[in-house]
Amino acid sequence: MDFLKQKILQESEVLSDHVITLDSILNQQVDPQMIMELGREFAKRFSEVKITKVLTIESSGISLGFATALELGVPLVFARRRKTLVSDPETYSERVPSFTKGIVTDMLVSRKFLQPDDHILLIDDIIANGDAARGLIRIIERSGANLVGVGIAVEKSFQAGARTIREQGIRVESLVTVASLQGGKIRFE
Amino acid sequence: MDFLKQKILQESEVLSDHVITLDSILNQQVDPQMIMELGREFAKRFSEVKITKVLTIESSGISLGFATALELGVPLVFARRRKTLVSDPETYSERVPSFTKGIVTDMLVSRKFLQPDDHILLIDDIIANGDAARGLIRIIERSGANLVGVGIAVEKSFQAGARTIREQGIRVESLVTVASLQGGKIRFE
Repeated sequence: MDFLKQKILQESEVLSDHVITLDSILNQQVDPQMIMELGREFAKRFSEVKITKVLTIESSGISLGFATALELGVPLVFARRRKTLVSDPETYSERVPSFTKGIVTDMLVSRKFLQPDDHILLIDDIIANGDAARGLIRIIERSGANLVGVGIAVEKSFQAGARTIREQGIRVESLVTVASLQGGKIRFE
Repeated sequence: MDFLKQKILQESEVLSDHVITLDSILNQQVDPQMIMELGREFAKRFSEVKITKVLTIESSGISLGFATALELGVPLVFARRRKTLVSDPETYSERVPSFTKGIVTDMLVSRKFLQPDDHILLIDDIIANGDAARGLIRIIERSGANLVGVGIAVEKSFQAGARTIREQGIRVESLVTVASLQGGKIRFE
């Protein structure tokens, strides 16, 4: 994944010791060819497990989730974010804080899209404290579906998200790991 | 686009004479192979014009925009929605009502992603009153970029959106046109 590291070094912006913006790579502008390469890599890493659906969360996860689902030949489901808790019996919802947005959001997935016989690969663009990923994992658990693993484009290993998920015994595959942003400098692991 | 009509007949839900939900086709769950077919169709219809970027709006437009951008070999940019107006000199914003959501949202695109020498293809999943599309068109105009046309998966021709945009002299290509939802029945044009 050296090309992704290169792209991050060239095009990202370090906003603080904890925050890096990937706007021109993953968040607001995407290069579809590059995203397809990342999707192919996720498909390869999880090629030996049965997967029936890819789950991601709007909006930054959708391109990456789409590319992975296209490579795997399975549907993509994406969770929605809402600022208010909808009480809908047809919908799984989890309230999670957002590290980058500094607000609480509710994540919603219609029940019909997650079935007990599903094998779910969770895909997201970046993991920091892991609140979104853990919320999605709770939703998958509640649906009775099987979580086969988590694929993350950029893991920030100096924050606890990916580690706490691995400690739950869940497989997490990160394409690139950022060990530190200290002093505005990106250090990869 | 008969397969898209079939899919709509099989999997959509008519909620009223004006509202159809495409949750399992375009909005919350997508079939990447089918979306790629739609993207190829847009790329074909606009093959004779120069396009440097595809612009869409989160979240439902992203899969379709991604597929189209992948086929065209250009970057995808997606506008964000916010409930509060961010006053950021680096960002184009337009306030628009949302027909389906019943609320007003602000659409935002970073200025750096739309340049005067860009040729933009606008892609969205569905057009009803066209508020989102017109908001994006105003953003493109303000950026000085050239709008080559608008590609829409599902046009609801009994609402004024697509017509008013065509009346501005802008090319609108819809893959499927729904003429009426009267009595819970989907009638295509």
